[in-house]
Amino acid sequence: MNVNTPWDMSVNRRILEMEYAVRGPIPQRAAELKKQGRRIIPCNLGNPQALGQQPISFYREVLSLVEHPVRIARERRLKTLFNGGALGGMDADDFPSDYVLDLGERYLAQMETGMGAYSDSSGPQFIREAVARYIDRRDGADDVHLPRSDPGQIFITNGASEAVRYVIDLLIGDESDGVMIPIPQYPLYSAAIKRCGGVQVDYFLDEESGWAMDRTLLESSLAAARERGVAVKAIVVINPGNPTGAVLNEETIGEVIAFAGENGLAIIADEVYQENVYDADAGFVSFARVLGRSDVPLFSVHSTSKGFYGECGHRGGYLEIRNAPRVKDANLSFTDLVLKQASVNICSNTVGQLMMYLLVSPPPENAEPYRRFTIERRKILDDLHDKAVMIRAGFDHMDGMACFGRTGAMYLFPRLDRLPEGKDDFDYCMGLLEETGLVTVNGEGFGQEPGTSHLRIAFLPSREVIEEVLPRWIDFHNAYVN
Amino acid sequence: MNVNTPWDMSVNRRILEMEYAVRGPIPQRAAELKKQGRRIIPCNLGNPQALGQQPISFYREVLSLVEHPVRIARERRLKTLFNGGALGGMDADDFPSDYVLDLGERYLAQMETGMGAYSDSSGPQFIREAVARYIDRRDGADDVHLPRSDPGQIFITNGASEAVRYVIDLLIGDESDGVMIPIPQYPLYSAAIKRCGGVQVDYFLDEESGWAMDRTLLESSLAAARERGVAVKAIVVINPGNPTGAVLNEETIGEVIAFAGENGLAIIADEVYQENVYDADAGFVSFARVLGRSDVPLFSVHSTSKGFYGECGHRGGYLEIRNAPRVKDANLSFTDLVLKQASVNICSNTVGQLMMYLLVSPPPENAEPYRRFTIERRKILDDLHDKAVMIRAGFDHMDGMACFGRTGAMYLFPRLDRLPEGKDDFDYCMGLLEETGLVTVNGEGFGQEPGTSHLRIAFLPSREVIEEVLPRWIDFHNAYVN
Repeated sequence: MNVNTPWDMSVNRRILEMEYAVRGPIPQRAAELKKQGRRIIPCNLGNPQALGQQPISFYREVLSLVEHPVRIARERRLKTLFNGGALGGMDADDFPSDYVLDLGERYLAQMETGMGAYSDSSGPQFIREAVARYIDRRDGADDVHLPRSDPGQIFITNGASEAVRYVIDLLIGDESDGVMIPIPQYPLYSAAIKRCGGVQVDYFLDEESGWAMDRTLLESSLAAARERGVAVKAIVVINPGNPTGAVLNEETIGEVIAFAGENGLAIIADEVYQENVYDADAGFVSFARVLGRSDVPLFSVHSTSKGFYGECGHRGGYLEIRNAPRVKDANLSFTDLVLKQASVNICSNTVGQLMMYLLVSPPPENAEPYRRFTIERRKILDDLHDKAVMIRAGFDHMDGMACFGRTGAMYLFPRLDRLPEGKDDFDYCMGLLEETGLVTVNGEGFGQEPGTSHLRIAFLPSREVIEEVLPRWIDFHNAYVN
Repeated sequence: MNVNTPWDMSVNRRILEMEYAVRGPIPQRAAELKKQGRRIIPCNLGNPQALGQQPISFYREVLSLVEHPVRIARERRLKTLFNGGALGGMDADDFPSDYVLDLGERYLAQMETGMGAYSDSSGPQFIREAVARYIDRRDGADDVHLPRSDPGQIFITNGASEAVRYVIDLLIGDESDGVMIPIPQYPLYSAAIKRCGGVQVDYFLDEESGWAMDRTLLESSLAAARERGVAVKAIVVINPGNPTGAVLNEETIGEVIAFAGENGLAIIADEVYQENVYDADAGFVSFARVLGRSDVPLFSVHSTSKGFYGECGHRGGYLEIRNAPRVKDANLSFTDLVLKQASVNICSNTVGQLMMYLLVSPPPENAEPYRRFTIERRKILDDLHDKAVMIRAGFDHMDGMACFGRTGAMYLFPRLDRLPEGKDDFDYCMGLLEETGLVTVNGEGFGQEPGTSHLRIAFLPSREVIEEVLPRWIDFHNAYVN
């Protein structure tokens, strides 16, 4: 409407060429269908609350108070009236617990300037300290075998995406610099590398071994890149895997660290799904824990968007740096330059910061909110697992649908072995969308072995929705491939 | 602590060379002093709530409800009990108004998936529509002389900074591309251009004419850049000015648009201080309004951090594009590529989005919150003006301190005409910090005419703090320069 006779202008070609399929043509077509009144089931993104997952009450109670501090005193007065019997029809559960009221007050005291002020660029010191203590508890840091986490090496960010961009922007100095990424990968990595003008160095995961990492495949990928003149700076590992769901064990992580150490690579560990491990015989092991006292540089990221928290919209994340490299020819460390990047952005949003603080500070066993928190947490994780199992079981009824590996993260990434001649996974996902309203993303968006076809689905819809849509998917599938 | 024997690695030199003085060495020294227990008055940033400005109650009431939706029904029940006389000692003001409760409900209904889900990458449609209506009201759009704002050309962003980076990242395709920026400028611009590897093309403002824009200075700056082989793509204008406080009139804006049109430049209009115009005889005029039906591309940014809102920590902003250029050799518009950048970031934070919605949707005259909202708004703006006048009056008692132009935005940018031999404005600001705790930023951080010295101070401390610190500043100053 306000576009008259627009001018032609040249642009940054790297942005022109950048791709991000999880918000690409398939979700865009879904948005059109939705406007036409069609029901859409958005499984293209790990966005649990968009599919009905309820937020953890504890988080929102605290948030609601610290955003409007006069409420804390008001709630105390209301509780007194209630305890005096003045509030017939209300229930004790209608009031925040004293634990939550005290926490809100303490949080604001530590923030000093409230939620409406810019904070330190790396995030408030007390939040970075709380994150460091969380990491130490998780990993059993003892300062002997495993150094404690240093709050000065932690940055609170707008989601993990921002943290990843800080690191990749810094690593890629010119067009010969490269970063190794798994195939399949989460396309934030390919997009971030493309935007910096660097080289994406693919290493393949071994699908039929449950999407395992394979040292031989790492070596050959690196050797081939170096032969092409690429200065490989780092390796990205996503654990638990996105889109694969694979969960790495201690031995594999140790091998990756050894590989990185021998080859002078930093490690970027995407650990945002660390709570999303469902198999009883698997457990999350962090890169930091296995790193121990090794000197390999590690950049680890976490997020408030995944796990059982699912607070995507609030955009909370952290970056923890270990063994920050020194900057060649400058009296600086990588951490100084991440701080500079964060400074230009002034600070991350304060609600994302709060969410991260709450993530790393769950209510202790003797606190009033503990019981409800634990029930909500357990229910979300159990539901996620059940829903993954349900969808996976549906694949058994789809001809030529093969899904490998354990179930971690929030996604299944099955292989489509019997697509008809002339059709690829993009056509399939578009067809599935038109037929069922299910929004998935085709394998090409994540990268895959040439000649194979996949799709990624986030196992997030409610059981009822899955029960309803799965038979329609099975029908669509078998008609499509036969 | 966890830094063992860190490695040397090369980095992106553009980040190494990037500078951002408002969070540079002076504020870093201030942070050290604060740790030692010194009182610090942070006037280096436009961060009003860090200096005691209270948030607008209306905003926080709505936020507090939509973040914990069960509260809406609970507040209605409490109000019924209160109206029935059951809540002795409570006051009507202790409960959200029906207007606020209804607004919270309506907001959540329009959000569909609540505050915890990722939204559309450009922000929810209903918020972009509300922003468009706000722009139209502000500018008197009638679709005859002035096209209405198009919600499809609006992006809700994490503060205005993110919006500016989207545009500059897109405009700078290679090392010969340049963007014109005012001197003095807000260093986000120089940092963003540096990070992209582009050329910063300075144009000077005419200090003694009240930091006026001067067509001759624009022409000569452009001609000199073109002679050096720079492909100048756009001109940045900050109105009201940061750090200068200058407010542009319609005539000057018309001249800038004509200059841009004749020279094939897009305009980046930083209008984040549009509510911060204090002089009775000046008024804010937007670039969009003066643009009318012209075909010059315009990128206008706004923020929830400034004005009377001051919600810095919540990181809300918008970008409005008019006459989006077509991308050379591609069947795309600039808007498509801004959307792609926003997609890779998934979405801006939902609380910043809410704040922007509230900014553009103030309570109408007949609504319950109107009176209090208006009183709070008026008080904040009156205070800002008074505090600017107080500090400016203090300059009259400082030898060789010259402050030009009207008072807009949140800053004063006086010239230090009598620095002693061998001292520059950085030394002065450091001395001022050590002596008084006042954190300012030296003129070099914004750019200034060679041979001149300045400082920027945000006029945000309370009157009481100003009354106390100003005499100490005057003493420091006169001792320093004499």
